[in-house]
Amino acid sequence: MYRQSTLKKRISRFQKILKGLGIKASVVSSIDNIFYLSGRLITEGCGPSLLFIPASGSPVLTIPEGEISLASSRVFPGTILPYNPEDDGPSLAAKVLKKSYLKEIKSPLGIEAGSISYNQSEILGIISRRDYLDIGSEIASMRSIKDGEEIELLRTAVRISYLGQAKAKESFKEGIDEISLQSLCRKTMEVAAGRPIESKADVLFGSKTSLIGSPRGVAGRYKAHRGDPAIVDFLPRVAGYFGDTTRTLWAGPVPREGRQTIKLLLEVKKSLENMLKPGVDTQALDEVARSRLSREGSFPHHTGHGIGISSCEAPFIIPNSNYLLKEGMTITLEPGLYFDKWGARIEDDYLITGDGFKRFEIYV
Amino acid sequence: MYRQSTLKKRISRFQKILKGLGIKASVVSSIDNIFYLSGRLITEGCGPSLLFIPASGSPVLTIPEGEISLASSRVFPGTILPYNPEDDGPSLAAKVLKKSYLKEIKSPLGIEAGSISYNQSEILGIISRRDYLDIGSEIASMRSIKDGEEIELLRTAVRISYLGQAKAKESFKEGIDEISLQSLCRKTMEVAAGRPIESKADVLFGSKTSLIGSPRGVAGRYKAHRGDPAIVDFLPRVAGYFGDTTRTLWAGPVPREGRQTIKLLLEVKKSLENMLKPGVDTQALDEVARSRLSREGSFPHHTGHGIGISSCEAPFIIPNSNYLLKEGMTITLEPGLYFDKWGARIEDDYLITGDGFKRFEIYV
Repeated sequence: MYRQSTLKKRISRFQKILKGLGIKASVVSSIDNIFYLSGRLITEGCGPSLLFIPASGSPVLTIPEGEISLASSRVFPGTILPYNPEDDGPSLAAKVLKKSYLKEIKSPLGIEAGSISYNQSEILGIISRRDYLDIGSEIASMRSIKDGEEIELLRTAVRISYLGQAKAKESFKEGIDEISLQSLCRKTMEVAAGRPIESKADVLFGSKTSLIGSPRGVAGRYKAHRGDPAIVDFLPRVAGYFGDTTRTLWAGPVPREGRQTIKLLLEVKKSLENMLKPGVDTQALDEVARSRLSREGSFPHHTGHGIGISSCEAPFIIPNSNYLLKEGMTITLEPGLYFDKWGARIEDDYLITGDGFKRFEIYV
Repeated sequence: MYRQSTLKKRISRFQKILKGLGIKASVVSSIDNIFYLSGRLITEGCGPSLLFIPASGSPVLTIPEGEISLASSRVFPGTILPYNPEDDGPSLAAKVLKKSYLKEIKSPLGIEAGSISYNQSEILGIISRRDYLDIGSEIASMRSIKDGEEIELLRTAVRISYLGQAKAKESFKEGIDEISLQSLCRKTMEVAAGRPIESKADVLFGSKTSLIGSPRGVAGRYKAHRGDPAIVDFLPRVAGYFGDTTRTLWAGPVPREGRQTIKLLLEVKKSLENMLKPGVDTQALDEVARSRLSREGSFPHHTGHGIGISSCEAPFIIPNSNYLLKEGMTITLEPGLYFDKWGARIEDDYLITGDGFKRFEIYV
């Protein structure tokens, strides 16, 4: 749960952006952006929510009344406007907001056009006046630079993903099946978090390692044979933030080609790390990884991406991307090689600092 | 994964509804309805999707190109229109659809106004012409009556939730903490499913049982003391369908008030079961449970709800609800009693048949 002081700072930064755009008020509708600016986590929610942020003054959060007593609601630095979800359903959040706060707003409204629904737009009067500015990318841009509290939360999430990696390393051997390993490590991570977590993962053995991961390959009942590789990629979401790490393991001794490949991936990771600092183009990072890896095999995968409230967010480290690294960005680097019959990937997480980077502490 | 013949029947039923409404074409946008009518499961997806269904002719599904090779895409009985999500992002599904299929449609378009975004609506031309009919409730109504394949899938999901219950019964004792029990049972259910599953749960011990469940109470690090009750509510989603069962357990011998309460809850459940048949009003069901339970303690909870692709869907068995039971509906009944210091709940799942009901087989 965010500290109230953190939320106040974020809302105030966002209000400056609104003023700069000439917007008097905005409605935030996507669940991740509502969380970022209000602390309301959908995993603990029981109905739709909208967040109203005026350019000046106090914000307003509409939530189902069942959420009023939650600690996150008590931390919100503004007005809580509860509704009874059984009275009307999903569009009620918009109705409640319209009635109390949007009557007097005459200037363009800031909205997230990619997430607000047609219904909500109609109720809020956006469709009839067609006078709005899309603020989704402004929030994405704010979110790409993490504040101190986010870095703390990410540190916990990354540490927990390594606890999963440690469990995988200890448990992956001949005879265990993919889904059992994935579930077992998920349990380790959830118990370490101390409360229910969301969790994404790729746990693939043998020839399925060539598939990279979901959606092409997902864990199933395949049992590891001696000599099989395993790609183990864990993305636990702890207190709203995703850690994201990957290791490649072998059932039994690591074969020579496995050792060579991991050595190369570590070298590529090292070259990428050496480039990490503010001002560097993500496209250049991707190019370094892609050109080196393509000489050895196939690399049909991204080189890395931002992590935070989304498991994969800006900056994206891919061909033709267009981001400059900035202080406070948090990213993963995940070089891999994918052959016809197997594949390997390693992945760690980084914070961009004023003059370089800090790796989130590696436990495995 | 649905059989192609099932999808063809559903699409054809939906097309009859469109014709009845005088709609030439529709765009389905909510992830659950896209799954229901196309077989595309978001948990295996890697980007937004839209489903175009004309009143006559073949449907079209836009998906990120990474999903083309999935078995679910191959089963879809229509045209697959892939897009590269890195080209443009979330609104691309709408652009692709507009370009190829919506140019010539002059009549009102059927849309899901509660889920389609402002951006998608603008791209599809819905905002400029403001000529649409909301088809969300039509699909919800179709979905409330399960077909044979759905009943099969629900049977599996319910069975897996009972496997979780069996594990909880075996494992709940003095000293275990809430999150460990929840994670352990989740692992049991996931391994039984043989692939990654979504899963919701309430696992609460001691005085937290009075909180009913999420969002007011979630599993944490509290360790069971001798004599503590536990409410264990599991909602695993297997192949797209949610089972939903609850048991109340005690660490050690069941105290006298616990035995009495469970006896009462079983009696109430029995009275409700005796009412289950087509034509019965859900409000009447709720009234029977609520009036009896309120005499003994507090019942600030729903009496039951439909289960299917959503964990909680129509019909809702609550005060002032307005549904008549129909053959093919699948519901839960979950009487409970919540006192100041503890609570208890039991929950099983039912199929409404032509002349009564069939309980999904109870394993625990």
